[in-house]
Order: sequence, then C-alpha cells, then structure tokens
Amino acid sequence: MRAIEFKNNQLFYIDQTKLPVKEVWKECKSLNSGYKAIGELQVRGAPLIGVFAAYCIYIHFKNKSLTINKFLIEFRRSLRYLKSCRPTAVNLAWALERLDQVVLKNKNNNKSLDQLKRIILNEAKAINQEDIQLCENMAKYGVGFMKKGDSILTHCNAGFLATSGDGTAIAVIYKAYERYKDIRVYSDETRPLLQGSRLSAWELSKRGVPVTVICDSMVATLMEQGEIDKIIVGADRIAANGDAANKIGTYGLAILAKYYKIPFYIVAPFSTFDLKLKNGKLIPIEERNKDEVRKLINKIKVAPSRVKVYNPAFDVTPNKLITAIISDKGVINPPFRKNINKVLGLGRVIKK
Amino acid sequence: MRAIEFKNNQLFYIDQTKLPVKEVWKECKSLNSGYKAIGELQVRGAPLIGVFAAYCIYIHFKNKSLTINKFLIEFRRSLRYLKSCRPTAVNLAWALERLDQVVLKNKNNNKSLDQLKRIILNEAKAINQEDIQLCENMAKYGVGFMKKGDSILTHCNAGFLATSGDGTAIAVIYKAYERYKDIRVYSDETRPLLQGSRLSAWELSKRGVPVTVICDSMVATLMEQGEIDKIIVGADRIAANGDAANKIGTYGLAILAKYYKIPFYIVAPFSTFDLKLKNGKLIPIEERNKDEVRKLINKIKVAPSRVKVYNPAFDVTPNKLITAIISDKGVINPPFRKNINKVLGLGRVIKK
Repeated sequence: MRAIEFKNNQLFYIDQTKLPVKEVWKECKSLNSGYKAIGELQVRGAPLIGVFAAYCIYIHFKNKSLTINKFLIEFRRSLRYLKSCRPTAVNLAWALERLDQVVLKNKNNNKSLDQLKRIILNEAKAINQEDIQLCENMAKYGVGFMKKGDSILTHCNAGFLATSGDGTAIAVIYKAYERYKDIRVYSDETRPLLQGSRLSAWELSKRGVPVTVICDSMVATLMEQGEIDKIIVGADRIAANGDAANKIGTYGLAILAKYYKIPFYIVAPFSTFDLKLKNGKLIPIEERNKDEVRKLINKIKVAPSRVKVYNPAFDVTPNKLITAIISDKGVINPPFRKNINKVLGLGRVIKK
Repeated sequence: MRAIEFKNNQLFYIDQTKLPVKEVWKECKSLNSGYKAIGELQVRGAPLIGVFAAYCIYIHFKNKSLTINKFLIEFRRSLRYLKSCRPTAVNLAWALERLDQVVLKNKNNNKSLDQLKRIILNEAKAINQEDIQLCENMAKYGVGFMKKGDSILTHCNAGFLATSGDGTAIAVIYKAYERYKDIRVYSDETRPLLQGSRLSAWELSKRGVPVTVICDSMVATLMEQGEIDKIIVGADRIAANGDAANKIGTYGLAILAKYYKIPFYIVAPFSTFDLKLKNGKLIPIEERNKDEVRKLINKIKVAPSRVKVYNPAFDVTPNKLITAIISDKGVINPPFRKNINKVLGLGRVIKK
C-alpha cells in the first residue's frame, strides 16, 4: 500500500484529510490541484510531498505545447509556485531543485519539448524509487535499536502516508514488527491536525501493528507507568549540528524522554539534512492558519473568535535531547556535527 | 460575572456545553433539570456543582406543600438522586451532605415546612458565600507570586466557570490583572474535552484579560522562546505529601517547567486536600469514555474504530515538581508534608 500512485501516465493520491473515515483516491490533474493537495495537506509528509510535487510538474506539462523558451519560463514559474506552498519541509524545494538541475543540464542540448518532458518524468520516477530505497535503508539501520516486547511512542505521521515508501520512523516500526511480532505502539493524536490518530493509527492498524491512541498530554502518565520504552519520530529538517525540526510537540516529548531517560530517535533520509544551517534556530517555522486550532477539522468552533491563537506547525528539538539520528546512510550518533558529515559525506556506516 | 445566579427566588446557570459559541442562560426549575444540567456538564467544575446542587434541592421544594414526614422522605430521596449524578465529584456529595445535616439538626424542633425550606436555602447560600470567600482568599495569597508583565500559562479551567466565585488558579490571574493590567495568559486547549480553549479562553477574554489559545503540544516551543514566566493550575485532589492530581496534561507541563526552571503553582482550597492519602500514587484516576478521544466533541470521528484508546482524565504531579501550593488558608511551600498540615491548621504532622 502506497500513499500516491503514478500509473498510465496519471498521478493518483489518497486524500489524507478524509482519513480515517474514508479511503478516498483522487487524481492530480493540474499544477493548481497539486498545489491545493499539498497546501490543504491532502498529500503531506516531507518526502511524499517532494515525490508528489515532482510528478505534479510533469502532469502540468504533459499535454502542453510550447516553444522551448516559453516552456523554460513556465517551468521555472511552476517550480517557484509549488515551492512556495510549504516553507519548512526541505524535501519539496529539494525535489523541485532536482528537476531544475536536470532541465538546466539538458536545455542547451537541442532537446525537444517531448524529450524535456520525458526527462522530467524520469527524474520524478528516480526521486520516487530512491525514496522507497531510502525508507528501506532507514528501516534496516533503525531496527537495530528495537527489541522484542518494545512499547514505542511515535508522534505525527512518518509512515507510508508520509513517504512514497514505508516511511521513516514508522518504517522502523514495521521492520521491528515484521521481525519480532511482539511490538506495541502508542500514537499520540498530534493536535491540531491529528495526524497521529487519523493517519498513524490508521496505517499501523492497516498493517496489523497493535496501536493505542492517546492525547498529546497523556505521555508523561504513560512514562510514569513505565509504558514507553522508546520514542521514534521523523523530521522535517535537520541542521548541521543535529537540531531537528519536526511536527509541533516533538520537542516537548524529547524533554519528557530526557526526564525519564527514555531513548529518543529521529529517523530521516539524507535529503532532510540542511547542512547550510549551522543550527536549528535558523530553520524557518511555518505558522499555520489559526482556524486549525480554533475549529475542529475546520468545522466545530472550540475557541472564542475574539481570542488570539498561536499555531506553529513545527518545533525544533535541540541535538542534546536526541539519542541518535537514523539515516538511510547509517546511524548517526553524537557528537552530531562531526558525525553527520562523516555518515552522510562518506556514505559510511558508523557502528553502534 | 458568575456561572450561576440565584435571584428572585430562582436559579439560573450558563449552559457551558454551548460555550464558546453562545452564552445561553437557562433556569433550573426542577430537580430533574438540575440533574440533567450536572450530568450533561452544562454545569461543571467540582466546587460549582456542589453549590448548584444545594440550590437545586431548594428549587425542588420551594413550591411544594407536604407534611413534614412526606417532606423528609422526599428530601432524602432527592439528595440521593442528585448525588448519584456524578458519583466521583466529591464536592457534590459534600454539599448535599451539609443540607442533610442541617435538616437533621432542625427536623425535631417543631419547624414548619416553610421554616425547613428557609433553612435549606440559607445553607445553600452559605455554601455559595463560603465558596466565593475561598476563591478570594486564594487570589489574595496567589497574587503575591505574580508581577507586572507576566505571561502565565494555565491548563484546563479553574476559573469562574468552575466555582461559584472567581475560581482557583484563574482567580489568581484575575487578581493579578486587576492589580497590574499588564498580564498575558496562554490557555492550552486541554484535550480531550477542550476546557482550556472552550472555557478558560472564553471567561478570561470576557473579563478583558489578553489570552492566547495554544495546543497542549506547543508549550515547549513557548518556553524556548521565553514566553512563559509561570504556570498556574488548579487541582482535583492533593495528597498529604503535596502530590497533586489535576486534569490530564498537568504532569507533563510540570516536567517542562522543571526543565526550563519556570515556577509551577497549584491553587486549591482546603477541601481539595485528602490527607488520608500518604501520596499521589493512592489517588484513584478515573479513565473516561474512549469516544472522548476517538471523536471530536462526540461528533467527528478522528481515530479508526479498530484501534485502542487510552483516556485517563487526570494525572498526578509529584510534589518535587511543584514550586508552591496556594490554598485559601495561605501559601504552602516545600517541604509539603510538613507545611500542608501547618498551613491548613490541622495541628498534626502526618508521619511518613
């Protein structure tokens, strides 16, 4: 089961805003519908957005007839447009940058428009295939930290609904479940958009993994009861020193984990690392629509209109609270500044 | 502004289930309507329920003509009936018990039915007045910890919607606002029942106090930004060593406060202390209906039916995370086991 599908030259996706009530598949037929799908979180999860956006650029041009010059202008405009849709997740910009590079490299080689379209599609497929492989690699490295009987807390959704493969953090859980069977998961609901209860609980139970939903505020109680053996989450952007931006609430969990001496793992592919940023303070944090908090699922009003609402979508967990970062290139242990370069740069696996 | 009003021999209340969308005042005209109001959480907050129930008993009898014997039978029946409405709320039983005692004391003194009705009403008014006074005392002691410019986080609802006075924790905020004006409040929404966004934000803004609603998971980010100067919350039960049960999520906040060295205050009247309990591990924790988590406001399904849900209503904050407990009898500083007895004036230190 995958969250998006490219087949018969068409792009399909599960509308994640309809989960867990209905599994609705939609077709992305235009740049605008792709922008809307990403903007409204019908398609979400940093790696998945990257793959989806790349296909979406192809969809935008597949039936267009343009001069090469007009195409190039429209191509750059469409990249900028899609890129502007969500600022924190680096994969979106990264995937679109790849398309840009590959077109740039080929545009002066007398390629026809059809050839350029084919080049874009092949690059999108390559990003997709690589993403699937990244997930497999992260699962392989991450499962080394898991053991039989583990009770694992995860936050937000970093599974097959967040990537085009098995996920990042949840891919590790799937691998552990496959290996040991005796694995339990707590999925906190992850307000305001409830990706934990709506998405992670849905996909974990879809794959048969025992999962219990809790409110975000119940984690300390479970830790006090000895019910959480480890925390494993994804990331949206990781700075050069290992500071990691992830869904709002992650940072609080990391502090609780520290208090209870529970291991706290981040799972993310190399593309999530933004080594230009020295530390997490430089990661831009998207503040989202206040109605996400003021209304439940945009419907039921639960806070007075006259009060202010603060709705940051992400927080930054400082590196000192992270036990290890599990990447597709291997496990990165502290000190992160040094080891991120070592593991990502040389493609060499650091032993535990 | 109060959550209930007794005037012209009639009992009125705000239907809290309609907040924050509408401020609907209803009249409690019968025992049954009072039972319904409490049972459906139209009237909630442990101290408020006690006061409301006492008035409700008077309302039940005010127009009745009965022999004294018939009255006594019906009186006991009505106490039992109301008490059964929310068996865990200790103030409800406590207030009705007070009516029982005062009628018991007077029934053999040749009192007329009208005199007994008057005695019930006076006792209800006394309970009400005492509750208002407790709130004033807590506010008076608590305001000593507040200062101009403070940005204060509160959790759940411990204000005028939870008592017949100004509240416990929020009464302190009102007093600080009255004194310094320059006070800001963050109210976390308090999943699953959202008393923070629905009720605290509503009542604070009603009184003109600047309030910002956040999700429970956003607190660490605000602390990181230096946006929280102190945390102040109520309590549902406090053990002899100061361990305090309060709405789920409180414990996690206390751990975050510790990490950031932010003062963490509990505000509660003497009646919240349960000195029979040596520590917080002995406080029974109510696990509530799973649909509170599975569905939003009992309407929108947000977690798959096939997954488990864990929904404890309260957690217990250990005394070591509490800066001070503010009671109606004065401020209780650590060591709590000794000082709770000293301040509450029970004369005897409970030995460990």
